[in-house]
Amino acid sequence: MFQRSEENLSMLFDFYEMTMANGYFVHGLDDVVGYFDVFYRKNPDNAGFSIFCGLESIIDYLKNLHFDADDIAFLRQKGIFSKDFLHYLETFRFTGDVWAVPDGSVVFPGEPLITVRAPIIEASLIETMLLLIVNHQSLIATKAGRIVRAAQGRPVMEFGSRRAHGADAANLGAQAAYIAGCLGTADTLADERFGVPALGTMAHSWVQLFPSEYEAFKTYAETYPNNATLLVDTYDTLTSGVPNAIRVFDEVLTPLGQHGGIRLDSGDIAYLSKKARIMLDESGHADATITASNSLDEYRIRDILEQGAKIDNFGVGENLITSKSSPVFGGVYKLVGVERNGEFKPRIKISENVEKITTPGFKTFYRFYDNETHKALADLITMHDEVIDESKPYEIFHPTYTWKRTRLEHYTVRPMRVKVFEGGTCIYTLPDLKERRAYCSQETESLWDEYKRFDNPHEYKVDLSLAVWNMKHDLLAQTEQQIRP
Amino acid sequence: MFQRSEENLSMLFDFYEMTMANGYFVHGLDDVVGYFDVFYRKNPDNAGFSIFCGLESIIDYLKNLHFDADDIAFLRQKGIFSKDFLHYLETFRFTGDVWAVPDGSVVFPGEPLITVRAPIIEASLIETMLLLIVNHQSLIATKAGRIVRAAQGRPVMEFGSRRAHGADAANLGAQAAYIAGCLGTADTLADERFGVPALGTMAHSWVQLFPSEYEAFKTYAETYPNNATLLVDTYDTLTSGVPNAIRVFDEVLTPLGQHGGIRLDSGDIAYLSKKARIMLDESGHADATITASNSLDEYRIRDILEQGAKIDNFGVGENLITSKSSPVFGGVYKLVGVERNGEFKPRIKISENVEKITTPGFKTFYRFYDNETHKALADLITMHDEVIDESKPYEIFHPTYTWKRTRLEHYTVRPMRVKVFEGGTCIYTLPDLKERRAYCSQETESLWDEYKRFDNPHEYKVDLSLAVWNMKHDLLAQTEQQIRP
Repeated sequence: MFQRSEENLSMLFDFYEMTMANGYFVHGLDDVVGYFDVFYRKNPDNAGFSIFCGLESIIDYLKNLHFDADDIAFLRQKGIFSKDFLHYLETFRFTGDVWAVPDGSVVFPGEPLITVRAPIIEASLIETMLLLIVNHQSLIATKAGRIVRAAQGRPVMEFGSRRAHGADAANLGAQAAYIAGCLGTADTLADERFGVPALGTMAHSWVQLFPSEYEAFKTYAETYPNNATLLVDTYDTLTSGVPNAIRVFDEVLTPLGQHGGIRLDSGDIAYLSKKARIMLDESGHADATITASNSLDEYRIRDILEQGAKIDNFGVGENLITSKSSPVFGGVYKLVGVERNGEFKPRIKISENVEKITTPGFKTFYRFYDNETHKALADLITMHDEVIDESKPYEIFHPTYTWKRTRLEHYTVRPMRVKVFEGGTCIYTLPDLKERRAYCSQETESLWDEYKRFDNPHEYKVDLSLAVWNMKHDLLAQTEQQIRP
Repeated sequence: MFQRSEENLSMLFDFYEMTMANGYFVHGLDDVVGYFDVFYRKNPDNAGFSIFCGLESIIDYLKNLHFDADDIAFLRQKGIFSKDFLHYLETFRFTGDVWAVPDGSVVFPGEPLITVRAPIIEASLIETMLLLIVNHQSLIATKAGRIVRAAQGRPVMEFGSRRAHGADAANLGAQAAYIAGCLGTADTLADERFGVPALGTMAHSWVQLFPSEYEAFKTYAETYPNNATLLVDTYDTLTSGVPNAIRVFDEVLTPLGQHGGIRLDSGDIAYLSKKARIMLDESGHADATITASNSLDEYRIRDILEQGAKIDNFGVGENLITSKSSPVFGGVYKLVGVERNGEFKPRIKISENVEKITTPGFKTFYRFYDNETHKALADLITMHDEVIDESKPYEIFHPTYTWKRTRLEHYTVRPMRVKVFEGGTCIYTLPDLKERRAYCSQETESLWDEYKRFDNPHEYKVDLSLAVWNMKHDLLAQTEQQIRP
């Protein structure tokens, strides 16, 4: 998409990435190869899992990464970068390897969603954009997935552009929401660029423009008899809006063999929808749909459906497009190893906060599925070249409470990541948007309901292989000895 | 900025805006002139006021508004737009008038921040982008202003790009934060495009790359002796990071007559900063600065400063760039009047929710300042052509509890809005970025502290002039009679 928008975002990096890059360059460290993992520590909304999204944007960004003459002139006038380094930037391209989970994947905290292996300067400079993309798009996909599940099969439309944090947030948020199961968006640009179906009928201003609500509805239905969802709350939903809608259905749509719909956008949706449903049914419009769109999210949708609200479609705005109740996806990008002259050394970051200690080494991860139910059993983070023999039982253990062990049998194991870049060339064929949406649905299907609860979900097992656990603890002990000898 | 990024966002509209536009066109309503107000109902974080931002982006967007052949082809294949309407879109441009408050203005709920007067089709099509821009940029400016005030004069850097909702959110968010008083940003593209100073030194990966923390610090200080802020928490802040930093200050910086700094990024910042300050002072580095950057916002900054934390600079990330505690600025765009053949008629939107009833008419607003203190006294929403005679006392009254009256004397009154577009031409000279930042600071200065409390601030008076109040209540009564005769 970034290509499609023709915007060059190569200069969107934290300034320290460039000061570090110049430092590596002038100290002859540019031949060091860095291994970086993208992972996150906590699911938004204390959910049981998240949905990864953003790989398409990352591919576009890395393909396009370069600095033009203006960029270099801008950096030069900062007066702190070496001449040779600025010269080096002129032909700078991404030449590394990237592994990542596909868009729409169900993922859990601590998993290496992406690993970048690249010369240290390149690997440093892409930190901000990789995180910005993953954090934004995964956040929205995760939230949209929750809202779609709350609607229990009823279509959910993403209607939040006007409250999005900028144009990218609207467009890419609409796409992420679609991948996670929304039916469409209000944002027409997301349709033109990405093929997310754009939907919508009328605003209050349409109704206000006409001398009466009836005339407004009638004119709209005559213009769009195939798609007349009438907004009924401009004056008063039950005494004015619904009666006028019924009159227009009778006069305009029924003669044409069409059926319309109404949209509720204020007041108590549960109450109004039940009253409106009765009014529609009793006037012979049982096939007229009711759409609701007033400050909805997964919790309110769940609650009003429990109360018997008669809603056929949901339009969800600000609570989805900003993930209002939990607006940050905390992905981080951490050095896990360095390689020089063919020699690999794992790296760790210790922290005052225990949960911020990183897991070192060049890793990947697998998901175990039960052969009978085909449901996911557990995930295992392993060294990159570890192989799991499906014919044998496999014992996993909790990385902190190591006495908590589970023996897996009759399972199928699946590597969760694909190789996306090799030596700077994209070798991954991105599935089209509908395929990514179908993949996401299939991923969510493979989870037991216990992990999908909105509140207090069961914790899914994400364990370390013995080899990863040993490396981490050896390195921890070694580092502790160095700093507290 | 949108021009500078060369991205055409004309197609970023809610699809219903185009279905309505086509409807107006085919029914010959395209000569109706619509008056729309942008206003909001509640300050984020239950604050006492907000800071308006986004006018620059709106100007760029309106100047650039057009549909190219691809856009029209895209719309054509939807199969619902009239041929003549699509032809009309080929030469579509914005031809209307716009009034708005300048970037950096202190604003309050209910005020007409922007009024658009334009042919109804144009006015309808710009709704989403106007709101998206104002809602995003005002949100971030408002949040950043709070964080800057909490720091009580200490510099605040915006460090949140990696958690922003997309690239626009990072770039434009950094700019909004700067206007609201931040000293700079981590985002280099915001510097290159807008001139927001980009700042930063090192990440954990720099420290991890070297065989020891000491070597990492030494190399950095040798490379950037003028700007060596060393990140001290990779292994252990007090037993490793600070002692190594002091050693490097002694060995590298002191001989050069430079002084460095440290950055705390985890653990308890209040405790660590006090301990580190003592260690730095006792080793002769009283001039070394301490920067803190761990999950900060206005509440935590206030709390740790109250506890005597020794912090010179703050770096604030996700809580600022997403306005995490309150991530939606709820600006809306409502029809307040229509004009046809020179005849103007006000329009109102009633609602189940009383606070959602709009204030009709072509309006503006004024701020009253006390002639002695120069502090703001109250705001008054008036008809567009109302004049206030400063030589006479002026009585304002609460729009709901109308018996609550205040007599203003010895005041100066200031119109809060400027005319930005006239007949589609931008007639406003945008102040440069530093001027907008200075204006914002001046605006905030003009408020009594009572309105600036983070929790439970005093409510600033925003009243309606008698003329506006009468029009609203006449129209309410009239409409009620129509729908419930």
